[in-house]
Amino acid sequence: MVNETQHTCSASSTSKSDGGSSSGSESSKDSSRCSTPVLDADRHERLREKMRRRQDSGDKWFSLEFFPPRTANAAVNLISRFDRMGVGGPLFIDVTWHPAGDPGSDKETSSMIIANTAVNYCGLETILHMTCCNQTKDDITGHLQKAKRLGLKNIMALRGDPAGEEWEEEVDGFNYAVDLVKHIRNEFDDYFDICVAGYPTGHPEAESYEADLRHLKEKVFAGADFIITQLFFRSETFLKFMKDCQAIGITCPIIPGIFPIQGYHSLRQLVKLSKLEVPQEIKDVIEPIKDNDAAIRNYGVELAVSMCRELLDSGMVHGLHFYTLNREVATTEVLKRLGIWKEDPRRPLPWAVSAHPKRRVEDVRPIFWASRPKSYIYRTQEWDDFPNGRWGNSSSPAFGELKDYYLFYLKSKSPREELLKMWGEELTGEESVFEVFTCYITGEPNKNGHKVTCMPWNDDPLATETNLLKEQLEKVNRRGILTINSQPNINGKPSTDPIVGWGPSGGYVFQKAYLEFFTSSEIVTALLKVLKKYELRVNYHIVNVKGQNITNAPDLQPNAVTWGIFPGREIIQPTVVDPVSFLSWKDEAFALWIEQWAKLYEEESPSRMIIQYIHDNYYLVNLVDNDFPLENCLWQVVDDTFELLN
Amino acid sequence: MVNETQHTCSASSTSKSDGGSSSGSESSKDSSRCSTPVLDADRHERLREKMRRRQDSGDKWFSLEFFPPRTANAAVNLISRFDRMGVGGPLFIDVTWHPAGDPGSDKETSSMIIANTAVNYCGLETILHMTCCNQTKDDITGHLQKAKRLGLKNIMALRGDPAGEEWEEEVDGFNYAVDLVKHIRNEFDDYFDICVAGYPTGHPEAESYEADLRHLKEKVFAGADFIITQLFFRSETFLKFMKDCQAIGITCPIIPGIFPIQGYHSLRQLVKLSKLEVPQEIKDVIEPIKDNDAAIRNYGVELAVSMCRELLDSGMVHGLHFYTLNREVATTEVLKRLGIWKEDPRRPLPWAVSAHPKRRVEDVRPIFWASRPKSYIYRTQEWDDFPNGRWGNSSSPAFGELKDYYLFYLKSKSPREELLKMWGEELTGEESVFEVFTCYITGEPNKNGHKVTCMPWNDDPLATETNLLKEQLEKVNRRGILTINSQPNINGKPSTDPIVGWGPSGGYVFQKAYLEFFTSSEIVTALLKVLKKYELRVNYHIVNVKGQNITNAPDLQPNAVTWGIFPGREIIQPTVVDPVSFLSWKDEAFALWIEQWAKLYEEESPSRMIIQYIHDNYYLVNLVDNDFPLENCLWQVVDDTFELLN
Repeated sequence: MVNETQHTCSASSTSKSDGGSSSGSESSKDSSRCSTPVLDADRHERLREKMRRRQDSGDKWFSLEFFPPRTANAAVNLISRFDRMGVGGPLFIDVTWHPAGDPGSDKETSSMIIANTAVNYCGLETILHMTCCNQTKDDITGHLQKAKRLGLKNIMALRGDPAGEEWEEEVDGFNYAVDLVKHIRNEFDDYFDICVAGYPTGHPEAESYEADLRHLKEKVFAGADFIITQLFFRSETFLKFMKDCQAIGITCPIIPGIFPIQGYHSLRQLVKLSKLEVPQEIKDVIEPIKDNDAAIRNYGVELAVSMCRELLDSGMVHGLHFYTLNREVATTEVLKRLGIWKEDPRRPLPWAVSAHPKRRVEDVRPIFWASRPKSYIYRTQEWDDFPNGRWGNSSSPAFGELKDYYLFYLKSKSPREELLKMWGEELTGEESVFEVFTCYITGEPNKNGHKVTCMPWNDDPLATETNLLKEQLEKVNRRGILTINSQPNINGKPSTDPIVGWGPSGGYVFQKAYLEFFTSSEIVTALLKVLKKYELRVNYHIVNVKGQNITNAPDLQPNAVTWGIFPGREIIQPTVVDPVSFLSWKDEAFALWIEQWAKLYEEESPSRMIIQYIHDNYYLVNLVDNDFPLENCLWQVVDDTFELLN
Repeated sequence: MVNETQHTCSASSTSKSDGGSSSGSESSKDSSRCSTPVLDADRHERLREKMRRRQDSGDKWFSLEFFPPRTANAAVNLISRFDRMGVGGPLFIDVTWHPAGDPGSDKETSSMIIANTAVNYCGLETILHMTCCNQTKDDITGHLQKAKRLGLKNIMALRGDPAGEEWEEEVDGFNYAVDLVKHIRNEFDDYFDICVAGYPTGHPEAESYEADLRHLKEKVFAGADFIITQLFFRSETFLKFMKDCQAIGITCPIIPGIFPIQGYHSLRQLVKLSKLEVPQEIKDVIEPIKDNDAAIRNYGVELAVSMCRELLDSGMVHGLHFYTLNREVATTEVLKRLGIWKEDPRRPLPWAVSAHPKRRVEDVRPIFWASRPKSYIYRTQEWDDFPNGRWGNSSSPAFGELKDYYLFYLKSKSPREELLKMWGEELTGEESVFEVFTCYITGEPNKNGHKVTCMPWNDDPLATETNLLKEQLEKVNRRGILTINSQPNINGKPSTDPIVGWGPSGGYVFQKAYLEFFTSSEIVTALLKVLKKYELRVNYHIVNVKGQNITNAPDLQPNAVTWGIFPGREIIQPTVVDPVSFLSWKDEAFALWIEQWAKLYEEESPSRMIIQYIHDNYYLVNLVDNDFPLENCLWQVVDDTFELLN
């Protein structure tokens, strides 16, 4: 009946707690606690631990492979794809490495920068591929150091294709993947999780299947944590390979690489590169339909689903690795049919987390960047530590400048022509700006028949949560209260609520009503008079582009506006309205008028001057209704303001 | 209309927030924030700032003077008096210094230790008197260093009475209070707030009233922050003195010393010591009633009230200092009649705060010590820093041992005979222990007709909040669930609620239901079976004196059980159930059976063996119902347990 408790957080705290004899000052240095309530073990574990935990729990998983894009536009699309496919809950993604493409550079399209974006901005656990053949030790160490600095924690160690036909082993050089594995372990100790490649039918250049197995064992014994295999066409191929590996003492996880056939040409090309043989039964099906892409894809999905089912049913396979070819449809379809695509992914926090290890404890952010999480991550990337528990406990929030609004992960996903259609080829006055905001809220087409699906402050359509406020938002935007952020008040909904829920199940989430908007100085004058009546209930912050600001925040303290209470845990308050950070956000929010909107038009053009006028003269306002258990009073505040103006 | 915001928290954050250009790592060292949401400015200001704020706001205040007790028993009584009179909201108390009584020693009755107790254990802003005459510089510096170490922040600098008639000035010695003021400022810079004495009719030994005023000015210019006056009998005396002070350039606060006449003999003695003349009109009243204490006290109260009214009505006086003579009734009565006794003091947090400056940010504690706050403060006195925001963010909680359960501020207020009457002269079995617990809960007399007003774990009668649970508690104690701590669940009551409210007004407070009790291993066995049904809802921790423990706390994380949401502030969660600290509390909770209860009886006596048996065999259990919005399920858990046993 009586037993010792188990916990994963710290191996030392049980012994400590049993003692309790020493008085605090000596032992207070070595904390035995997690600083953050463990809401989501995924944020605290390394990849190999996650794999082990999934294996132990019997929870099947998948991962996704991508290659770096060729153009900046393709990069923007790929990042959107990361976001969309991230929703399905991959255990990790990986980004391939092509020596010819300057993979370690700072270019928007390099493997390094794409992997950096996946981990930091999309919050995905990411493996960066790296090849070693024909490279110097210094180059490789440099790449690894850079990867570490960017927050990458996992490397797929590969040999790569030797340049030229006349390749020979270099003495003391990097001739095989095993050399890279050893180098990583020598230089970086246990920092990285290392993955290596396995060849279910043997590497095409290996002397034999058996010799290749021995090479694989060498790589594992040199320090690799797990294996991802080359693609194959029959589940028996993989299962035999796996048994052969186990027979010679390879015990680490071996993840089958799955290639859903998506088209005739891509299949041919892949087969050529990998020197694999396509089984006759597959050729027989494909050849007759080789010009019908849809038919081939349907067949590919069918084939992949049945092979994956066989693998999973074998009991030997816990995760599946997908060669996506940077495409979405076929892989998503296979995953959905297998039932391992998370239809309703639980949000650990109400905002998009970053997977950089130094942000592991981060659990508070200002609400202002709610629709621009990538900008927030970018502007705080230099911070040494991140707010945990309370915003006010953190150091002074110094936000980095957004020097280049066209940095590809901060850029609008839509091209200029598209934006002009949405936001107006020609503006005729402030009212035509009101109209754009209103159309964005309602989802109705503008007068030229185009739907407004994004705004400079929101790159995506209205959030489901904001939809709850649609009717009121429409009304106020029509009259020049140009809303850019809002949330309804919530008085204790289950943490599993599909719209406002977040965090582990069994908890309750709360919100204070929030409204943020641009508006004219006339409306601000009236608003301030009205706010006097609400002094004890509503906190406000009103600022113009010059930084003149008015607030009733006590002692410039942050105001928690989202919080959650969970079983057996301390309280989490992930979102605050912070009057100090608001001044940094103000710079960004005002600059977006110019950078994203005004610059669509010719200099000196009337349209540009209208936006410039708003930028120069409007105020940015945020309002919080502190009485979250009562009906949201912010709409009444706005109504009173308009009434006063009439 | 547009203006810059004001805030007191930090002078530098406005400029910082305007910049926002530097990236975090450089500037992250100098935090410009208060780490704790400012719930109660009193915790963050020094005494002179508090005085200034009260003066600015027109909020009248009072302070109380005490002398150190002669015996340890008197010390226990004095500390209870601090707690009771602290409820009225004094701005500070002060403790006098008598060189003959070894005032700087570690004795329970020394001025130093009494002042230490007031500031640390009773949470009172405290001034320690100190005299300098006939003392060496090293002695004085030693006393001041000790005072600082104990968390005392204010000194009343006095000359003291020279020993012997033949006193002469010593060259470079401490001859006058001004020497002490200078010494404090030289050696301790601005650390201490310094108070000096003023004599409304001139010091008896001064050459003249005018010469004495000049001495006072010297003391102020040497660095004193404010003045408390000697007692006087007419308001005109004080008001004239104050004007005379101002005329010669003394601008610091001058606080009138009020002496409510409480008896004929104490008045005569005081007059003799202070060499003051009692006005004839007062003598005329007192002489005829000199043997009627009650009549004299009534007259004294009357007189003090009308004099205080005159002072306050003059507009020159913002605070009143009371010479209490360590008595409660007269001073309290005067204060109540003046309307400056706080009838309903607001609790800044749901537990008793300490006024040690290093505990200023403390805002989380384990619930276990709810009824033993002095023990908690004692056991954590060596900590370097205190949990703020989250318990889990703090360092490993190493609790100091309670080596001597008879340390006077941890001792029961009741004498042994009283305890025997309450807890039983002779116990006949475990049931007679159940009976004691039950009588404590119900407030009904025990079978010998004595009410049980305290328990080893609760030195005071049942808290008002616990009274809400009285009926259920009675039922379970009768059956051997011996409760020592509990709270009901609260789903958002106003922070001003008279029973469960705390913190600033306009907020909402919440609680999870909590129940802590000792019980037998038979009941624990059944309880554990029942708890399986409640696994997702109820967190439990069950431990015996040997430290065998069973818990379902995830990762040994703390569970927040009290929290508050306030306008414009981050969330406060002042109470947690922490599984690690519970093991330290367990030692204390079990030891109290022996130290406070078993030791009342002879060794080997049946009564003592019954308590020893319980100590050795019972378990200490805590239960939290995480579903605070639903009806408390813990009573159902207990009912199910008894049902299973039957």
